[in-house]
Amino acid sequence: MTTREAIRIVRGAQAARASVLARKPLDEITGSPELQSSIERLFGKPMTLDQVVATILNDVRNDGDTAVQHYSTLLDGGAVEPLRVSAEEIERAWQSTPQPLRDALTHAAERIAAFHQLQKAGSWLNWGDEGTLGQMVRPLERVGIYAPNGRVPYPSSLLMAAVPAKVAGVPHVVVATPPRGGQLSQTILAAAYAAGVDEVYAVGGAQAIGALAYGTASIPRVDKILGPGNIFVVLAKRRVYGSVDIDQLPGPTETLLVADESANPVFAAADMLAQAEHDPLASAILITPSCQLAERVQAEIGRQLTSLSRAETIRASLESNGAIVLAEDVDEAIQLANEYAPEHLCLLLADAWERLGQVRNAGGVFVGEWASEALGDYAIGPSHIMPTNRTARFSSPVNIWDFVKITSVFNINPDALPALSATAITLAEEEGLTAHAQAVRVRLQACDQEVRHG
Amino acid sequence: MTTREAIRIVRGAQAARASVLARKPLDEITGSPELQSSIERLFGKPMTLDQVVATILNDVRNDGDTAVQHYSTLLDGGAVEPLRVSAEEIERAWQSTPQPLRDALTHAAERIAAFHQLQKAGSWLNWGDEGTLGQMVRPLERVGIYAPNGRVPYPSSLLMAAVPAKVAGVPHVVVATPPRGGQLSQTILAAAYAAGVDEVYAVGGAQAIGALAYGTASIPRVDKILGPGNIFVVLAKRRVYGSVDIDQLPGPTETLLVADESANPVFAAADMLAQAEHDPLASAILITPSCQLAERVQAEIGRQLTSLSRAETIRASLESNGAIVLAEDVDEAIQLANEYAPEHLCLLLADAWERLGQVRNAGGVFVGEWASEALGDYAIGPSHIMPTNRTARFSSPVNIWDFVKITSVFNINPDALPALSATAITLAEEEGLTAHAQAVRVRLQACDQEVRHG
Repeated sequence: MTTREAIRIVRGAQAARASVLARKPLDEITGSPELQSSIERLFGKPMTLDQVVATILNDVRNDGDTAVQHYSTLLDGGAVEPLRVSAEEIERAWQSTPQPLRDALTHAAERIAAFHQLQKAGSWLNWGDEGTLGQMVRPLERVGIYAPNGRVPYPSSLLMAAVPAKVAGVPHVVVATPPRGGQLSQTILAAAYAAGVDEVYAVGGAQAIGALAYGTASIPRVDKILGPGNIFVVLAKRRVYGSVDIDQLPGPTETLLVADESANPVFAAADMLAQAEHDPLASAILITPSCQLAERVQAEIGRQLTSLSRAETIRASLESNGAIVLAEDVDEAIQLANEYAPEHLCLLLADAWERLGQVRNAGGVFVGEWASEALGDYAIGPSHIMPTNRTARFSSPVNIWDFVKITSVFNINPDALPALSATAITLAEEEGLTAHAQAVRVRLQACDQEVRHG
Repeated sequence: MTTREAIRIVRGAQAARASVLARKPLDEITGSPELQSSIERLFGKPMTLDQVVATILNDVRNDGDTAVQHYSTLLDGGAVEPLRVSAEEIERAWQSTPQPLRDALTHAAERIAAFHQLQKAGSWLNWGDEGTLGQMVRPLERVGIYAPNGRVPYPSSLLMAAVPAKVAGVPHVVVATPPRGGQLSQTILAAAYAAGVDEVYAVGGAQAIGALAYGTASIPRVDKILGPGNIFVVLAKRRVYGSVDIDQLPGPTETLLVADESANPVFAAADMLAQAEHDPLASAILITPSCQLAERVQAEIGRQLTSLSRAETIRASLESNGAIVLAEDVDEAIQLANEYAPEHLCLLLADAWERLGQVRNAGGVFVGEWASEALGDYAIGPSHIMPTNRTARFSSPVNIWDFVKITSVFNINPDALPALSATAITLAEEEGLTAHAQAVRVRLQACDQEVRHG
């Protein structure tokens, strides 16, 4: 039997840059025809997704809880009263969760907490001759985490945002999760319990983002919103950015493996299949200088694929966004990885540790064959919420710095005033800001008088 | 002679919250009638500011340098060829700068560098029983700084972004500054020289932001854009966010003083006048429990105001956005400051250091009467680019973390696989991600076999 291979092999860096490694610019997002017609039915007229989101946000800002409940009924098929889920209901969900899942949630939360406790993000002061300068580092007061409630909930994503927030010292970590047909996900409530979340609200979609950003009578507004969501949630996060902080605008997930001939093709194939099962837009890419490995992984993917429950999604993903790329050598493979800036970078290399310093752009780097990306998604400790779509060039996985902010501390000894004042007055006058120069001068004069009369 | 006071006194927290301390939501920004008619003249039809920006960005993305030079000619009154300013021209600008200004720029750059060198933002690894985990912290590759070239240039703002970027280790710090009537600001070029900027490009407005975000033949794209600008620059930064990182969407500047009866009214008045001279939207607010101080500062503002060159702007600012607020006590004054979350918070208090821990939300805190905010704007060291419009709740002044990003490092000892795998498999199966469970299992099995046959 000869079937078409599930994944193609691309030969050479140039061909790879022009195809599987090419990044598309962020474009306007349009909904499917089904989505468009359901918008027209629900809102009484055709609207773009962004117009729908703008309308919902505006209504929530103006009408608060009333608008929230209106949209829960209209879009999620049922509102829950009251919006705040009681501590008893959250604890009941935990108690009724099967023991193995409770153990797994507890263990994952402990691992995430232990890792983030190692990250230092503290205040500092420096007592110098000119005065005392430093940075006060403080946790945010309120953080909102969005937890989708689709066909399958993702309790792990809730843990990966909520646990670092609690470790950072955020006193109010709140979760918003949609009532699907009037029902909350019991697994999400159990995960909120395991993560030590402080408040849970039964609201989803753009209306949840609006409520978290602007506040309503029932839902106090937060300082930052994190967590994945559907296209309405993403567009709403983009719109409220500035009123509150957001974690990122997530794109499809990506895993890039760099492997040499020492790599186990069974592991490499399994890692690519795991990546591809997320959705058809997910990217699973292997770059290797070894033709033999390339062919073995290609064969192994075909073999393992048949037994997987999500084979259809995997096939679609591998066909559109997957590839095995043949590079000149490992140096070129890492160079291509740095250009691509993947969310996940797996180094299946004999000298993986020696190569680590060559990595410039990646959300997470998995060093050696035992640290599988799938294990990292759940149980290792660093957050699995990582930058996608080449944003690893400039942004970081969720970490303690997402939940704190800096206040600069300025204190000056009067002895230091003359030298500093000369510089400040010159620059202020250059910029035409004469009252700035004056605010510096009145102190210089007072200080001078103290010295003379003191 | 009785004239109307330049600044009002507001009595009580409630009245203050309802007036001068109230925050307005971020609204759609519309241009003045003059701006609207010049848009219609230049673009041949009426357009909103955001439509103008979208058009410019789109043209720059599609047509690169051609579009950049077209808009420089159309909007700035002259393009400069080539776009990249030569090292010789930058050095000439430095050589022809008067010595006192060169000294001030050098001194300020040294102070900013010295402060930011004290901030720790380093990689770490932790060698635990389960494996080696950590965070790799790396500088961004290319950072773009926008430097306006209006009637008066602001060299200090360039230093406050570029110097921390160089301290963080960014190899390519580039500046974009508009050719005003075909001329660059020599002071901006001199500041770029003092800051050790690597490249300067003669382009401004939304076209500069587009070129930095998307890249052109002459201007390689950057990873992050910082720096103040006019409304077109701000709207363009908002639109390219996601393709690149941005520092913030700056609002009008704010200074809030908390003072007790020990405060020197001359200093307090001078600080408020300095703040108010920026522009009519700037806010200068004093909160104090002392009626006597309130009246003295009010009188002193009237007295100092008459001699200042920007008195007209100051009057407009103090009238619309300034106030002296009478609070119950210092605790309430700091509580109001925390709610307002000012860009600058000045503690003119006898026990300023003891009160520092009460400060929760501020961009910078000026402890004691000698550290004037105006001195901090130029010569103390921490960056003067700070969060405005209540974003100090969740964001920080420009600092080293703006110029680095984290890559999480995952490495696992095979011994640790059984315990971690159980948790990962349970959660993966709960989430329906069976290929994830499989990627974990293939390693568990291999590890098992090694133990049995090894």
